[in-house]
Amino acid sequence: MDKSKLNRITAKMQEKGLSQMIVSDPVSIFYLIEKWIFPGERFHALYINTNGDNHFVMNRLFPQNEDLGVPVTYYDDIDDGVAVMAQFTDKDAALGIDKNLPSKFLLRLQELGAASAYCNGSVIFDKVRQIKSEEEQKLMKESGAMLDSVMGKLIPWVVKGLSEKELNAKCIELLKEEGFEDRSFDPITAYARGAADPHHITDDSKGKHGDCVILDIGGVWKNYCSDMTRTVFIGEYSDRQKEIYNIVLEANKRGIAAAKPGAKMSDVDKAARDYITEKGFGEYFTHRTGHSIGMECHETGDVSSANDEIIEVGQCFSVEPGIYLYDEGIGVRIEDIVLITEDGCVTLNNYPKEEMIVVPEE
Amino acid sequence: MDKSKLNRITAKMQEKGLSQMIVSDPVSIFYLIEKWIFPGERFHALYINTNGDNHFVMNRLFPQNEDLGVPVTYYDDIDDGVAVMAQFTDKDAALGIDKNLPSKFLLRLQELGAASAYCNGSVIFDKVRQIKSEEEQKLMKESGAMLDSVMGKLIPWVVKGLSEKELNAKCIELLKEEGFEDRSFDPITAYARGAADPHHITDDSKGKHGDCVILDIGGVWKNYCSDMTRTVFIGEYSDRQKEIYNIVLEANKRGIAAAKPGAKMSDVDKAARDYITEKGFGEYFTHRTGHSIGMECHETGDVSSANDEIIEVGQCFSVEPGIYLYDEGIGVRIEDIVLITEDGCVTLNNYPKEEMIVVPEE
Repeated sequence: MDKSKLNRITAKMQEKGLSQMIVSDPVSIFYLIEKWIFPGERFHALYINTNGDNHFVMNRLFPQNEDLGVPVTYYDDIDDGVAVMAQFTDKDAALGIDKNLPSKFLLRLQELGAASAYCNGSVIFDKVRQIKSEEEQKLMKESGAMLDSVMGKLIPWVVKGLSEKELNAKCIELLKEEGFEDRSFDPITAYARGAADPHHITDDSKGKHGDCVILDIGGVWKNYCSDMTRTVFIGEYSDRQKEIYNIVLEANKRGIAAAKPGAKMSDVDKAARDYITEKGFGEYFTHRTGHSIGMECHETGDVSSANDEIIEVGQCFSVEPGIYLYDEGIGVRIEDIVLITEDGCVTLNNYPKEEMIVVPEE
Repeated sequence: MDKSKLNRITAKMQEKGLSQMIVSDPVSIFYLIEKWIFPGERFHALYINTNGDNHFVMNRLFPQNEDLGVPVTYYDDIDDGVAVMAQFTDKDAALGIDKNLPSKFLLRLQELGAASAYCNGSVIFDKVRQIKSEEEQKLMKESGAMLDSVMGKLIPWVVKGLSEKELNAKCIELLKEEGFEDRSFDPITAYARGAADPHHITDDSKGKHGDCVILDIGGVWKNYCSDMTRTVFIGEYSDRQKEIYNIVLEANKRGIAAAKPGAKMSDVDKAARDYITEKGFGEYFTHRTGHSIGMECHETGDVSSANDEIIEVGQCFSVEPGIYLYDEGIGVRIEDIVLITEDGCVTLNNYPKEEMIVVPEE
């Protein structure tokens, strides 16, 4: 158990007046014990009490040979693991619940009267996870730099006649070659109308001269995710495409400029969104401006008008405005990850945003 | 929306006295609307009321072009999707909750007073999913037969000097070649001590003469999962290995013989477990005897002493006893999927269980 991280969590719990919490997400558990355990559909949770009386309840199928720094109580496959957990909780206090705990387990805790009230404990846990330690910042930077290299190798392939699915497979191959242990998400490699639909499913269509191509890719490096989007054009772009591209690029830059300690997450969204709206395309920017990122590609902490939380040093999130004109077959998104520093932010991926025409080699 | 499946669900709801339920699991939603939608971390749920006043609440990022047979209410990315759902629920009645709904959404429903009480609605939904329709039975049979073919091609590879990881990659390749769209789970390909540890992680170790090898594999065919385990021996087996093998084989057969309509799921577990216990190895059979299977590899409905539910025609589940002697480096598991018929069951995979010695070709 990482004492420093645990202390940050219990300090935040005390600040919020919450004395106990259960953590079940394998990522959050890894964050604390630096060990991956995937219990599948079985109950598996770490109980944290600010008085230090912590317990890990897990199925006997996942025996731990090393000391996890917290007492482990095993239950048998036919036992009610939630009832075992309920032996440890303080019935007279509120209990923080992992946001991703399957509801069946929360319902059972409630049935057993495990606490006096229940709340989303991840609000606290995720806030701690948002602030990256020096070691985490180093890994996030490495992950971003590796992704720059992959983007550079991927872009020439958009003019080689591959279908979207083939381009996708090529991307996955390049991520692997680069040394990433996994991809942060299934890459998006979409031509023209596919690019103009933010939830297009990769298909067999091929790119043609004048198409825009969205490449939204990411890899996992030593458990830390990178994520970047570039939009390029095959052979040339029309005036209309250029106009849209430059609006999104400026929105991306304005969002990044607004990302600094003391500002609100919503300020970043506003900086990007207002510019796009001002240019007349507000209704075609259909998603939030970004998401927090770390061990998971999408972590708690949206860059959206609904999130007024204050930005702190050490946070990492995406700035990814987009404009999607489905009827015209034009979609443009430009995404960078920022790391908040004392005096603003740095971008963790730095692949050029200005060179967007790709021509086939002679 | 599949009316026949929906009617079975609402009939079961009425039988249990539950008037409303929300369904959020992408698999359960596919079961009803035959369309995959993966909303990631965003709220996404189908509300079912026995009075027919059904609603689908989803993020505007997932626009549906075709008629889903149920009115769709979209919410914006910055809106509170749960609050939109709460407009439709009956505040004065109990609400069934999808077992896998992330707790953050259940807590929010409770905060909004969306219902008078909350219970695990999947108990009803999963019971309906357990009983496979004729079309589903056909797909389950096809999936099982395809897996027989893969097992036949995989087994010769255990004597070709591959590491566990290489054997695993070979298995994935063979599943793909066979036409499976995906694997049901990451295959288990384990030699000796690895085989003797049910949660061993595939590593670089190689098999040697006299080793047992566990091959636990499965593929997804038109959305339906297969799953089978065979244990083989490299070159020869010792008397001890043969003894263990035959005990597990007999337990597997007894479990299958007990799988029939009207019996309890726990009877199947008991038939397999009692035999192993009688032979003195009860403590080395450390897991439940099996799990239900269908669109997911592990579905609700354990074959365990804790499940006294009555078996019905159309159910599919695994019978997979095992004995794990870690200190001796011996692990044996034999798994078949059964489909319950009027007069007992049929096995969906039929790769031989009696030929377990593999010798290298000359």
